[in-house]
Amino acid sequence: MSKPDTDILAQLDQILESRKGQAASKSYVASLYAKGVEGIAKKVGEEATEVVIAAMQGNREELIYETADLWFHSLILLANAGIRSDEVLAELSRRLGVSGHAEKAARTAKN
Amino acid sequence: MSKPDTDILAQLDQILESRKGQAASKSYVASLYAKGVEGIAKKVGEEATEVVIAAMQGNREELIYETADLWFHSLILLANAGIRSDEVLAELSRRLGVSGHAEKAARTAKN
Amino acid sequence: MSKPDTDILAQLDQILESRKGQAASKSYVASLYAKGVEGIAKKVGEEATEVVIAAMQGNREELIYETADLWFHSLILLANAGIRSDEVLAELSRRLGVSGHAEKAARTAKN
Amino acid sequence: MSKPDTDILAQLDQILESRKGQAASKSYVASLYAKGVEGIAKKVGEEATEVVIAAMQGNREELIYETADLWFHSLILLANAGIRSDEVLAELSRRLGVSGHAEKAARTAKN
Repeated sequence: MSKPDTDILAQLDQILESRKGQAASKSYVASLYAKGVEGIAKKVGEEATEVVIAAMQGNREELIYETADLWFHSLILLANAGIRSDEVLAELSRRLGVSGHAEKAARTAKN
Repeated sequence: MSKPDTDILAQLDQILESRKGQAASKSYVASLYAKGVEGIAKKVGEEATEVVIAAMQGNREELIYETADLWFHSLILLANAGIRSDEVLAELSRRLGVSGHAEKAARTAKN
Repeated sequence: MSKPDTDILAQLDQILESRKGQAASKSYVASLYAKGVEGIAKKVGEEATEVVIAAMQGNREELIYETADLWFHSLILLANAGIRSDEVLAELSRRLGVSGHAEKAARTAKN
Repeated sequence: MSKPDTDILAQLDQILESRKGQAASKSYVASLYAKGVEGIAKKVGEEATEVVIAAMQGNREELIYETADLWFHSLILLANAGIRSDEVLAELSRRLGVSGHAEKAARTAKN
């Protein structure tokens, strides 16, 4: 396998897009689309809890695995809303030039 | 700005690594490291809830923003455990060749 | 202090109801009502994460404290929707007569 | 059925205690105990997400049902740690005499 690179998220976007036309019985992703936003959002909440638990256990392999699950299901939640990963990456990129505490202050002001 | 890609995740890895030596008062990320794994994990749980809420609201901009927050804080949780984003991308890449329901079955067997 | 019992939940219901007319600046509960269902739901998600973390730490005192926080904020979420705790207790009571695996089967069928 | 009253949580405590000796195959609760604290904590995280989703949907019946699920699974998490519900009620009772913003200030100081 070639080394993971910049295109994996974009490839996942394409795959998730291609699952939109499929029957729920044919694809795990299609079965999640069929459950609607609440079904997909529920999975994101579940996977986040598993990330928290893996982190608390100090289990390195589990933490990688569960974080992949969390990102994967959040990509499905985005795809369901017609959003591609590069829009999230653009938001993260925007923050690269912003100092941490300034970012925090901006977020606090926002909330 | 050049088009966002997952080099952004690698850049974030570097920035998060560089924050490890800093005083908590100087950087939001350093202040999270100072709280330990439970403080960072707590933020991941919070951000996941905000993603769920933004999705349920059908608020596109919020969903992008909160997903960026969720990924950002999960990168901090990884960095705190000495894990770089490319290890998560490798796990996601591994799944690219696996059909959805097979993946689901593998995950179910694992849990 | 007399021994705690679920009359405490009924007392909390009354207190939460009485906060509905108050200014957000006067009361923590009123400040949450002012944030709307998404603000209160966000707190429930946060407190649940803290319960998970306290449980994983095996910290008995924290687990009691954070569970109280979780129940307290879920009571606010209920109150905000015009629901009293005894409706939740009635649902729990209904399950007292139902065997665990039957209950699980019923819930699975529901989901 | 008699009206839900102060004893339902105490009855649930007793039932949850009685499940400790059972085979996982005989009881849903025993099957959760068998998964350990991480398995039970995972369920608490899941149920909290479902509460958040039900609240966002504005679905009154679902909100009652999912809150019952959340409390039920948090009681199992407590029971697994040898904690009875009255210890949580005592913590809630302690707060009855404390003003909201004072409570909030105390919690903020604590965290």
